[in-house]
Amino acid sequence: MSAVDDRKPGGAPASTAASVVLERCDELATYTSLPGGLIERVYLSPQHAAVNSRTGQWMRAAGLTTWQDSAGNQCARLEGHRAGLPALLLASHLDTVPSAGRYDGILGVLIALAVAERINAGVAPADRPVALEVLAFGDEEGTRFGTTLLGSRAVAGTWDPDWWSLEDADGVTLHDAYLAFGLDPATVGDAARAPVELVGYLEAHIEQGPVLDEAGLPLGVVTSIAGARRFQIVVEGAAGHSGTPWARRRDALAGASEAVLAIERIARGEAGHSSGLIATVGHLAVFPDAVNVIAGRVEFSLDLRGEFDDARDAAWLGIKAAMTAMSERRGLRVTWQQTHSAPAAHCSERMRRVVAAGIRATERAGADPAAPPELFSMAGHDAMALAAVTEIGMLFVRCAGGVSHHPDESVTEADIARAVDALEASVLELFEQYRSEPGVEGTAS
Amino acid sequence: MSAVDDRKPGGAPASTAASVVLERCDELATYTSLPGGLIERVYLSPQHAAVNSRTGQWMRAAGLTTWQDSAGNQCARLEGHRAGLPALLLASHLDTVPSAGRYDGILGVLIALAVAERINAGVAPADRPVALEVLAFGDEEGTRFGTTLLGSRAVAGTWDPDWWSLEDADGVTLHDAYLAFGLDPATVGDAARAPVELVGYLEAHIEQGPVLDEAGLPLGVVTSIAGARRFQIVVEGAAGHSGTPWARRRDALAGASEAVLAIERIARGEAGHSSGLIATVGHLAVFPDAVNVIAGRVEFSLDLRGEFDDARDAAWLGIKAAMTAMSERRGLRVTWQQTHSAPAAHCSERMRRVVAAGIRATERAGADPAAPPELFSMAGHDAMALAAVTEIGMLFVRCAGGVSHHPDESVTEADIARAVDALEASVLELFEQYRSEPGVEGTAS
Repeated sequence: MSAVDDRKPGGAPASTAASVVLERCDELATYTSLPGGLIERVYLSPQHAAVNSRTGQWMRAAGLTTWQDSAGNQCARLEGHRAGLPALLLASHLDTVPSAGRYDGILGVLIALAVAERINAGVAPADRPVALEVLAFGDEEGTRFGTTLLGSRAVAGTWDPDWWSLEDADGVTLHDAYLAFGLDPATVGDAARAPVELVGYLEAHIEQGPVLDEAGLPLGVVTSIAGARRFQIVVEGAAGHSGTPWARRRDALAGASEAVLAIERIARGEAGHSSGLIATVGHLAVFPDAVNVIAGRVEFSLDLRGEFDDARDAAWLGIKAAMTAMSERRGLRVTWQQTHSAPAAHCSERMRRVVAAGIRATERAGADPAAPPELFSMAGHDAMALAAVTEIGMLFVRCAGGVSHHPDESVTEADIARAVDALEASVLELFEQYRSEPGVEGTAS
Repeated sequence: MSAVDDRKPGGAPASTAASVVLERCDELATYTSLPGGLIERVYLSPQHAAVNSRTGQWMRAAGLTTWQDSAGNQCARLEGHRAGLPALLLASHLDTVPSAGRYDGILGVLIALAVAERINAGVAPADRPVALEVLAFGDEEGTRFGTTLLGSRAVAGTWDPDWWSLEDADGVTLHDAYLAFGLDPATVGDAARAPVELVGYLEAHIEQGPVLDEAGLPLGVVTSIAGARRFQIVVEGAAGHSGTPWARRRDALAGASEAVLAIERIARGEAGHSSGLIATVGHLAVFPDAVNVIAGRVEFSLDLRGEFDDARDAAWLGIKAAMTAMSERRGLRVTWQQTHSAPAAHCSERMRRVVAAGIRATERAGADPAAPPELFSMAGHDAMALAAVTEIGMLFVRCAGGVSHHPDESVTEADIARAVDALEASVLELFEQYRSEPGVEGTAS
């Protein structure tokens, strides 16, 4: 039987599923720590607890068994033809950046849940060769503690004990935030999943870029995910009265401004020649930050990512050299600390084919059977963390103008309907493969 | 009798007075809203109330009559040969910038108090042709509400009712801060002093520049005070995911960085050619300020000051043009609002001569009778506000390296001793002049 035929007996039709997904995105957008309709929901916050609880209700209503894992991720499971089989993970995250849109991460969780609900309704237990899990990670963005993928790295078993001393803006450590959330730091390892428990990982996500929108296509297959390096950079000069003569000024903000422009110039590369790199200085703080005091110290972040790790690392060398020259010329001191480093993560051949097959299954009969577009992701995703323990695949959904991390994030119901269909078809395609694949059932007990 | 001879009968010798002044500076430095020994004391704060109270104790111990005026300035008065004579004001401020030094403003108040104590002890009431007042202004720096000289402008009668809606960083209006401090906004006009009540204004202050230190001289005469213009500048772009391609980025922080460097270049002028201007971007805030979000909005301050108002205003035109060109090139929007504007304030000929005479009176017998150095002040001072109602003079005191608005502000006890002597001698010189000046006694009743 084909994947598309297989889903017809049960579950809601895609258009209903899509409208439910969008209603739920709207509802989760109301769980925010910001006033005025702006969205911010960070790891281990009261809003995190609230969306876990609400999502858990939906998961149970879909017929799944739910739990919150020891890292604060909201999890749900649909068993296969017998209990304890290895699982295919469908996942994304529920945390947000400040002043976020309502789809980055959230959409992927809710599409995954819609698909699991359809599989539960439409595929008899006896026909499920593996378990299916829906995971809603508690931290992907790293908004609160500066380090990203805390939720998905706990699941991947790549948690770093050094993270316990990370502090949020109020000086609360990650360790204490765990306790305040009702979690036990000593048990974080329980969230980790071994490779033998997993058969793969699929994530739907808005593109956060303009490629699909400009091509007029709703869905795309992700080939790989850029590896980002992040740095915290400090420029130190001397605070002083705003009347201080030029010759005696050691203005940390003038120096930092030069650094910001050097970063842009180096990462952007020569005019007309794509560097394959993106650099962002998104955070910058001035001390003492008073109208009539020369900045004595500026701290800023650098997020540097690229399609190729070598080019990215070469750009960082150039940035360091430019900042050092600037600091010597201005009598400043520049120091840096790498806060994050990840290599580019590659989607497996099998998962790329399966996602492509899922997209093709949504095309109208007789439509041009052109291969779905393949995209490279400049944005990081939870899939990067899971690549450490299983093979990963990602389905990108068009977002208007490529806008993301902004209240204007926008998707269409028709695209979401296609995405639910495509992800479901991918899962059914994998089920088909696992049925005929020796060993899958024997890898976990 | 000469000024110097006149002080010998009464009061503490200068060395004792100087050590008391420095001890008091140390004590007032403990009234702070910051931890870790850092100093910040803003208008209408609990720390403001506390230093007023403590300074009032010292004022009464010196034999002065004290009150807190309707704008929160701590005041003290020593009558002349009869009550109600017009007053010579000796003043400076007790508020600070964040992470301040302990002498900017505070030193001038405590030197003034030391001088008033000496006059009280050493000059019989019958020999005082005018009253003497010591004023400790509650706001000169503008740290809390962004607008400077609030205390001294209340005394000058140039209070602007629009200020009531100014807000601090917590959204508290100046109006509500008055109420919380126990002041009645409706009576702020009572703090205003009419020109007929005043015979002049003298202020001692650390130089906040390197001229005296480099010349190896303890004291200088101020000729005039730079007029500053301040602007709040907003750069708006579009927040977006840090993976957004270059062609679609409208990065407000990259634009603001370009603006900061253009401001520096334009205000500094051509290499080797002094522009007579100083520009400072001391405050800058990024929104949403997250590591992985392109800055959608940056707000920053500009403090632009110069010896000549025309050159300053021409530089602002150049800065506006550069920012406009930058914003068009980058697809950003730049807007600005002037938050403060003051013309250069000139010390009167008489007050300059009196301050110079005071300095000369402190020189050792037989020392070179060279005229004391004359300095232009790039920093603003309360004297600028008082220039609206009386003639002003200022005495600058050497500070190490010209460092100010920084915990490293430093003065020597020997210099303070000279400053107390010089300011006292200036007051006695003025007393001498007022005695022979017809009309002084008749100008107030």
